[in-house]
Formats: sequence, C-alpha cells, structure tokens
Amino acid sequence: MNTRGENPPIVSLLTDFGTADAYVGVMKGVILSRCPAARIVDITHDVEPGNVHAAGHLLRGAWRYFPAGTVHTVVVDPGVGSDRRVLAAEVDGHRFVGPDNGVLSGVFDDVAPSRVIDVTNDALFLKPVSRTFHGRDIFAPVAASLACGVALDELGDVVDSWIHLPRLAPATDASGAVIGQIVYVDRFGNLVSNIEEADVSAMARPVVHIGGRAIAGVSTSYASVDEGKLVAVIGSTGRLEISVNRGSAAERLRAAVGTELRVADEEATA
Amino acid sequence: MNTRGENPPIVSLLTDFGTADAYVGVMKGVILSRCPAARIVDITHDVEPGNVHAAGHLLRGAWRYFPAGTVHTVVVDPGVGSDRRVLAAEVDGHRFVGPDNGVLSGVFDDVAPSRVIDVTNDALFLKPVSRTFHGRDIFAPVAASLACGVALDELGDVVDSWIHLPRLAPATDASGAVIGQIVYVDRFGNLVSNIEEADVSAMARPVVHIGGRAIAGVSTSYASVDEGKLVAVIGSTGRLEISVNRGSAAERLRAAVGTELRVADEEATA
Amino acid sequence: MNTRGENPPIVSLLTDFGTADAYVGVMKGVILSRCPAARIVDITHDVEPGNVHAAGHLLRGAWRYFPAGTVHTVVVDPGVGSDRRVLAAEVDGHRFVGPDNGVLSGVFDDVAPSRVIDVTNDALFLKPVSRTFHGRDIFAPVAASLACGVALDELGDVVDSWIHLPRLAPATDASGAVIGQIVYVDRFGNLVSNIEEADVSAMARPVVHIGGRAIAGVSTSYASVDEGKLVAVIGSTGRLEISVNRGSAAERLRAAVGTELRVADEEATA
Repeated sequence: MNTRGENPPIVSLLTDFGTADAYVGVMKGVILSRCPAARIVDITHDVEPGNVHAAGHLLRGAWRYFPAGTVHTVVVDPGVGSDRRVLAAEVDGHRFVGPDNGVLSGVFDDVAPSRVIDVTNDALFLKPVSRTFHGRDIFAPVAASLACGVALDELGDVVDSWIHLPRLAPATDASGAVIGQIVYVDRFGNLVSNIEEADVSAMARPVVHIGGRAIAGVSTSYASVDEGKLVAVIGSTGRLEISVNRGSAAERLRAAVGTELRVADEEATA
Repeated sequence: MNTRGENPPIVSLLTDFGTADAYVGVMKGVILSRCPAARIVDITHDVEPGNVHAAGHLLRGAWRYFPAGTVHTVVVDPGVGSDRRVLAAEVDGHRFVGPDNGVLSGVFDDVAPSRVIDVTNDALFLKPVSRTFHGRDIFAPVAASLACGVALDELGDVVDSWIHLPRLAPATDASGAVIGQIVYVDRFGNLVSNIEEADVSAMARPVVHIGGRAIAGVSTSYASVDEGKLVAVIGSTGRLEISVNRGSAAERLRAAVGTELRVADEEATA
Repeated sequence: MNTRGENPPIVSLLTDFGTADAYVGVMKGVILSRCPAARIVDITHDVEPGNVHAAGHLLRGAWRYFPAGTVHTVVVDPGVGSDRRVLAAEVDGHRFVGPDNGVLSGVFDDVAPSRVIDVTNDALFLKPVSRTFHGRDIFAPVAASLACGVALDELGDVVDSWIHLPRLAPATDASGAVIGQIVYVDRFGNLVSNIEEADVSAMARPVVHIGGRAIAGVSTSYASVDEGKLVAVIGSTGRLEISVNRGSAAERLRAAVGTELRVADEEATA
C-alpha cells in the first residue's frame, strides 16, 4: 500500500467509453475506493466504440513508456455480458487487465507474458455485477486490487491460450517492393503503416506509392518538406508514416485504415 | 491535510466547460493552490452547455462509486453572475458543491442530505470574484476548502429549501402498461429511460414499444441478441435501457431525450 | 522528491495532441517514470493543431492560477524535427518548458522571466530522440526533471532573445473609439477580444459595434440580459467579451478570431 515512501501504484486506463458520460469517472471512483493510493492515468477513452484493433494498436505503442508495475486497464469490450473471459497478465514487470477479445494479444506478441490469468475470483468484483458495465464492476476493482498488492495468482488460474487478433504483416513482391497497409490514423491525419524501419532501410532510393501518389525518400521529420507537402517518415513508434507537413495526409490522400501502400527501391527497379 | 498517512482528499468535477479551453485546468490550479493534497477526478466536462438535467442525471449515477468524503463539485451554471445561491451539502458522508439551480436536487431526492448550506462566506472565495467564472472564483476554492478540512458549517447558514428539478416519473395506464421517457442518451447511443427494474419485473412477458418498434423481453446483456439487433436491458444504473448490440439505438430509432416508451405485459394484455 | 511532507511537484500540460490518440498518455508515462511524485494536470490538449496563437492565449490566462513551482509544459510544436530551439524559463516562481516558436512569449511579455534557457542538455532526453515526437522524448523528460529537482541552469545556457509572437494591440481612432479584434473563441461561443477593461472604463456610455450590430453598455454578467440576447461583458481574464446569454455569440454574429470590433463612447461622439 505504499506506506514506506515507495512510489505510488499507477493504473492506466484505455477505453472506448468517451468522456461525455460518467463511465470513466465512475471507474476512477471505484479504483480510488479500493486503492486510495493509486495514481490513475488516462491513455485514451476515445477509441472508436468496439474497435479492438485500434485499442490494441494504441496499447502496444504506449505501455512501455510507463513505469514498471503499472496496471494497464483496457476496456474495449463489445462482448460485455457474454461469456468472454477476463484476462490479467504480467509482461516485463507491467500488469495488464482486459477482456479476452484480442485487445491484449498484440502486447503478448511483442513480449511474451510471464503469466496470463483467467480472472474468475469474483470476491474481488463489485456486487451485484451488472451485465452491461464490467468496466465498473470487474475491470476497475481487479485493477485496483493489483495496484494495491493483490498477487496475480489470486485472481484465477493460469491459462496458456487466448483470443489472438490477426495482425497484417507487410509482404514483399517479386521486385523486392514492400506492400503494407495503413493500420492507424491519428488526430493530425498522419497515416501509420505496418511497415517497419528495417523493411525499407536497406533500400537505396525508396519511393512510397499510396493513393496514386509517389513520395520519394524517407525523411527524418515533417519539417524536412515545405508546408503542405506530403512526406514519408519513420514515426515515433518505429514504423513508416505518411504525413503532410502542417496538414492531414488522411484528407489529402483520402486514405484510411486498410489503405494499401507500396515501397519500391527505384535504384533496384529502374 | 493528510499528514498521518490518511487517504488523500478527493475532489470530483462535473462541468459543462468542455476540455478545449483552459477553464477546467484553471479550476484544478486553484484547487491545488488551496489544497495541495487533493486528488482531482473528472466525472465529465462535456455536459451540453447549461443542461442541468443531464448533469443531474450523471451525478446521480456516479457519486456513490466514490469514496466517502469526496467533494463532488458541479459547475453547470447558466445563471452565473445572477443572484442564484451557491449550495454545499453533506449526503451520506459525501460532500457536494454546486449552484442552486436544481443540479443537486436529484441527489437530495435519492438520499436526504444531512445538511444543506447557503454558501456566503466569501472569505474563502478567490478575489476579485468575476461575474462570469464562478467555477474558478467560488466553486473551486470552496471545494478545496472542504477537501482540506474546512467544516461545512463555516461556509454559511443551513437552509431547508432549494431549487427542485422536476423529475418525470413513469405512469401506468388502465391496462397496466408502464409509460416512461428517455432521460439520457449516452455516447454509444444507448437510450436510458426513467423506468426502473421494479416497474417491469412483475410482468410475465414485457414488450417494449418505442419509435414504432416492439422489443419482446428484457434481456440480461447487449450480447444476448445478434449484432445489430435492438435489445431492452436493465442498465448499469438499474433502469430500463434500449440498445443496439454494437450499434446505436438513438440512430436506429431516431430517439432522443423525451422520447416516450411503453412497456406492456403481453401475457396480461393478450 | 517530497520526502519531508512538502507539497508534491505539479506538471501542467498544454498541447495540440488531442485525446483520441495515446500521445498524451505516453507523455504522462514518461513524466511519472522520471518523477514518480509528480502531479500532472491537463490545461488542454485540444488546441487546434499547430495554432501557437491559441495555445499562447490559453497559457497566458491559466498559469497564474497554479501554485508557484508548477512546471508548465507546452507542446504545440509544428516545427518538431526542425532546428527550432527548446526553451525552459522561470517566471515569478513558475517554470515553463516549450518550443521556441512564440508560444511562451506572451507569458514573457506579461511578466519578465528571471531566466530563459536554451535546453541543450540531451543527457535528460529520452533516447533515441525521435524526429516526430519531442513531447515524449524531450519535453516530458525535461519537465519531469525540473519537477523533481533538476535546476534550470543544468538544462543549458541562458539566452536573452527568443521568437516573439506579434500581439495585436487595440488602436484608438480620431474620435476616441477603440478598435480591437477577437483573439479567441471559447466552447460556449463567447468572443474574447484584445480590449482591456481599462480601455473602455473611462467611457461614459460605451457602445460595442461588431458584425453589424451595436451593443449598448458593458454589463457585469451574462445573466444581466434576457436569454438569447447579445451582451458585452468584462470576462474572467479582464478583457471585453461578446456573449449571448445561454447561446453562442460566434454563431449569432458569424464572428471568429480576427473579427474586428469597435467601442465608441456615445456620450462623447453624440
């Protein structure tokens, strides 16, 4: 409980509840009721309702920047009230709580979890457990329990399989060009692809083809091109992004999640 | 002030200030200036401007999930600068601060307050008090004072009446059917009615009529119907809600706050 | 670090990152990793992308309401990845961190900074430093370092010039009328001008002309006119604002940032 001057426990929240209703505030009230010392940090609550892919993408890019010990709590849960399981896990000293619908599987793909638990210890839940708001009745109290010292093993039995969200990997064609997809569009209209820096770093003269446009070269920053110009950069999560300096690439290219892009080495293909 | 390892005081905020301006941040700065130990939790800031009914609805559903002692601070205050009073109250160990415009009356209807105070002790206010931003100049410093140990009685005199927001109660017609209204629409398009579980639990075969559609039965969760189907459930606040599994009932039924719904027992009316 | 019961260090955040992505959550994770005792307060994250003027306006109106010692962290940074400098400053006991693009210059205009530093000590940065997300890699760790006791001088060398954002000052015409501009529009549609109370307080009978309308008198609050009526008030930051009681002046007058307004003393000009 933090009585010896240790660092306060941190609970991060990632949901699709939005912030216009009181759902998130209620979850925080429950967490602080169970674990008064908890520090609660919002990752975001504006995931598109039920979009497990987007939530998984954001979680994968965010969790490592928190202190070890953080309890990452993910409630993007379109199957609430069904018999889908609740998972808790430990990965590299971080803890995770979320529904077993694939939202955590991207993290587990990146770093093998040391334990994954099927959370069944309903003594920790808020009673009566509703069928429509497990964020309040299950996820918040379980996260608070972990934050305040309950051991992972007390939550339920270890499992060795879980729902796995398929992840589109980029492909390479006969010419050596890499074909990927846009996997996330951020608030600025930056288009984040699934192509990693390593996929294109060997190319002498990479040219990105997307939405009928060709973008020559991979730049080091948005500001390396004139205002309003398209630019391909290696973004902050290490993947190829298409941007417009001080503008929206999503609007410019009418691109969205799923849009295909192709990176060819013109030196090679010429 | 929390010098003996006690739990930190919590201040919850519920406003219509939005989060695009600095109003909420300024309130938090004032609170932390007055009560550095305070833990501030947002319920929401996205209440429709001036919508006292919506704010009252959210407050009623949220406050009990916070720890006793929390100072719930409500600033939905279209009459700011007029002579409307400022109220502070104690209800079941929780404290409340807000304008006397009915926004707190739903809580007082649910649980009788042990004391309601007309806040007049302007020694606690931030000077000079503006006529347009009492969130900063009155509500924040009063909430912070309560959080850091100022007694309710020091704020002003006890009152025994306040502005009361009328609350639409469901009616029962000659056939025994219950007629209610939609009182809140959430981010997912779930339609929350004023019909309580007890109003329909005695019905052998309840059928919900709304927007020209008939929904048979009250289900236990969204997921109990196929994706895209309408469903009536008892929601997380104990009231009848109309939802679409992974969709928006508000869009599907073109329903909004005020839309009427009728629950008939077909067993009885057949 | 707060081991002697001192007040916890506060870090305020003001960005254009929005809250739909994980950028802000990641910054908070970095801050808490570096300075676990930090209390993080959002001013706003919904500044229009790249709008340095709007961010500067909000910062100027907000910072003084925080406790002395607060580290105000501003990341509205369209030039990220270019060679623009990173500034840290001390102003009246508060600390500021932000890009050298003018976003801090309004604060420095209001109160002369005791020191402004060109932040070059990359030992404090998060490595590797990306070219697209300095909020995470530079601003967050620098702010956390300041919050947890690193001295300003350790960040780099003192500078005595910085990018200065021009600020439109109101003008006075031959008749003595004051001509100003709308400099900010808030969530309620209130139009905040650059005309200060002192500019109009000497007028016997001020009349505000804007958008083809004339508003007689400067009122003390929105509620001093009937619902739906236009009103001119001295707003919470001491400047002339045009509002509609329980409505939007921006919509009513089709006004925006840059719209001109003119205040004439009818007693004088009649």
